[in-house]
Amino acid sequence: MTNLSSRSSKELLMLKEQLAAQYKAYQAQRLNLNMARGKPGKEQLDLSIPMLTCVDSAETCKAEDGTDCRNYGGLDGLPEAKRLFAEILDVQPENILVGGNSSLNMMYDTVARAMLFGVNGSLPWCKLDKIKFLCPVPGYDRHFAVCESLGIEMIPVEMQENGPDMAAVKHLVESDPAVKGIWCVPKYSNPEGKTYSDAVVDAFSSLQPAAVDFRIFWDNAYVIHHIRDMHDHLKNILDACAAHNHPDMVYMFASTSKITFPGAGVAVLASSVANITEAKQHMSAQTIGPDKLNQLRHLRFFKDLTGLEAHMQKHQAILAPKFSAVLEILQKELGGLGIANWTEPNGGYFISFNAPDNCASRIVELCREAGVVTTPAGATFPYHKDPRDRNIRIAPTMPSLDELRTAISLFALCVKLAAVEKLLAREPSLV
Amino acid sequence: MTNLSSRSSKELLMLKEQLAAQYKAYQAQRLNLNMARGKPGKEQLDLSIPMLTCVDSAETCKAEDGTDCRNYGGLDGLPEAKRLFAEILDVQPENILVGGNSSLNMMYDTVARAMLFGVNGSLPWCKLDKIKFLCPVPGYDRHFAVCESLGIEMIPVEMQENGPDMAAVKHLVESDPAVKGIWCVPKYSNPEGKTYSDAVVDAFSSLQPAAVDFRIFWDNAYVIHHIRDMHDHLKNILDACAAHNHPDMVYMFASTSKITFPGAGVAVLASSVANITEAKQHMSAQTIGPDKLNQLRHLRFFKDLTGLEAHMQKHQAILAPKFSAVLEILQKELGGLGIANWTEPNGGYFISFNAPDNCASRIVELCREAGVVTTPAGATFPYHKDPRDRNIRIAPTMPSLDELRTAISLFALCVKLAAVEKLLAREPSLV
Repeated sequence: MTNLSSRSSKELLMLKEQLAAQYKAYQAQRLNLNMARGKPGKEQLDLSIPMLTCVDSAETCKAEDGTDCRNYGGLDGLPEAKRLFAEILDVQPENILVGGNSSLNMMYDTVARAMLFGVNGSLPWCKLDKIKFLCPVPGYDRHFAVCESLGIEMIPVEMQENGPDMAAVKHLVESDPAVKGIWCVPKYSNPEGKTYSDAVVDAFSSLQPAAVDFRIFWDNAYVIHHIRDMHDHLKNILDACAAHNHPDMVYMFASTSKITFPGAGVAVLASSVANITEAKQHMSAQTIGPDKLNQLRHLRFFKDLTGLEAHMQKHQAILAPKFSAVLEILQKELGGLGIANWTEPNGGYFISFNAPDNCASRIVELCREAGVVTTPAGATFPYHKDPRDRNIRIAPTMPSLDELRTAISLFALCVKLAAVEKLLAREPSLV
Repeated sequence: MTNLSSRSSKELLMLKEQLAAQYKAYQAQRLNLNMARGKPGKEQLDLSIPMLTCVDSAETCKAEDGTDCRNYGGLDGLPEAKRLFAEILDVQPENILVGGNSSLNMMYDTVARAMLFGVNGSLPWCKLDKIKFLCPVPGYDRHFAVCESLGIEMIPVEMQENGPDMAAVKHLVESDPAVKGIWCVPKYSNPEGKTYSDAVVDAFSSLQPAAVDFRIFWDNAYVIHHIRDMHDHLKNILDACAAHNHPDMVYMFASTSKITFPGAGVAVLASSVANITEAKQHMSAQTIGPDKLNQLRHLRFFKDLTGLEAHMQKHQAILAPKFSAVLEILQKELGGLGIANWTEPNGGYFISFNAPDNCASRIVELCREAGVVTTPAGATFPYHKDPRDRNIRIAPTMPSLDELRTAISLFALCVKLAAVEKLLAREPSLV
């Protein structure tokens, strides 16, 4: 296909008419599809059904050391759960705190504790006039919502091919003591599916922050969530920071939300022993402990890392065709038109799509009016403000393959329609 | 038996020798018993084993409205879970927020939100120089730990026969704007097992706090936890406060921790619609939602309030003999000696025991050295400081009936021993 921008107004008008007719035909189908969030589909959830019943008696409620997991106790999780997560995250069990069903909750609480108590003896952040976090963009809207809720100013930092713009990160972190944190999804990032290179991890670990209580919030949400047989590799940042004499600079998070059940998984914090000890000290006033029975369910279901990896292969087998379908349709419908680009990740839950500038909102609106809900335009930026209004997060996991083909075909149509509308309005700066 | 204080020194010395010999015999048994916490015993936990497997398939993971409870979503819990808790707490479903496995966590988070954001538009508490909470004593150590952790000053208020000293509460709440809260366990209180009278509830609801953001933390932990057929009645404080034009003055908490599994129950916050809305607004940044599968397990296991009440009868059948055994032994060993008094509750998890002044620490020490761990002396007071060093919380639920008889017999012996030691040391002021 020829680049849209090279076409004449007459050609564009004809194309617009064709596209509008196609769009009308979609509307007539009265679709009701949702690609808004990174939710696993039903087929994925069914993979973990046996987990529901593998703890089914007084005997199977017992932990390795004989602890009756039905009763109170165990602030930081079962030792065997720590061991499994330590293997997954390539750390030691003493670096692990196993929690409840939500890693977002652990991240929020970690920031909230810093607000209330400070970090490792520093002044409570709530006593300071201004707290700032760096936010690589495009990024994860729920990270941004934590900051917004707690009144933390967000500073966007561009994502590059191998991670955030580390020159910008270094400058901001090392010059401004109000910069206390950065949100990262370092592997199969949300939404781009990019994995930070070793050089980027090294640049993080060698930061010399202006604030002694600067912390990296390393949301390793997709640590074993591969879509292709080609796996990305992420360098271990805990080790790297320890090697650079910053053992306490990182809080790492993960969960089984997209491994077993999003609503009933197990979340985990991994950090230096000092940080884990500090978190436990504050948490001992907050809770007696997490749901140990649900930890046991996971342990009995997976048995070990090998079992867990075999399980992730089944997810991959379900997800790979969905991602392929999206990429195929985008290429077929939009390839060569010169109006858009998108990522082709090896793992994670999303494809990041860049439309022509000032078109994302229009595309999302067109999709919605034809019955397909996408992630809102702007969601991948702090304060919901994409300065170029071009980025849209595509979440292909929830719909069935058939539904997804329909939804993405409509999406591609809406992209073309919005692009033609814009060209006809004679606005410059196509991507 | 005759009052110890009327005995001669010679009689007391003889008695001390006898008691010391009995104590030695206990030590020889090398006991290892724990009455420290209000933990249900194994027999109680076994009552809920069928709950483990009543959600066992994709079909049974569906909520009433078709929601797949395995997936993300539902910040405030399942509608049917709200309905059941509304019945238990005698409120409306819109007053209910159903959470995770820990009501302590909900209480802590409610106070932490007030610290970070204020209450209903008030200044964040962390911005104020001093925050004070009233603490009826004896009371629940984990409530006190929340305050201590968050730097909230605790002011003890005496528990009387029908609840806290409301004249003192009224004076403090109405005169000091730094008083922002009070902790209450209004039914079968911890540790005394007392239930607040209607007059006390009315006195709470008609308070005119100096602080607009004063809140009552109403921990209804034992709302349906009866030990005897004679049930205490607790007046509905949400209704009472609404009737006195203070609809937002109360946060009520409860959980199924002592109904199903302490580590894997379901916790609940009940409050005005305005308070629930405010909590949800902040929580939407903290979590996507609680474990809905565990809520479903509870719903399918109990079916309805009638099922739940029948279940509580089974707990009562296990607990009543334990409480009776404790009371019987205390009466037999200590009745008429004039050295101690204790409560005889109709429900809850504890018996509150008052030893002679300055004897509680010694009794706990003697018990521990003979292999019986009790709740630490002072635990029932803010900052672990019982000014009279006399109160000990007895938690009879965890040991078996046989173990319990042994533990309480030893306990009574230690009380006598400590009392005789004290009399011989010629200290006055026996209870």
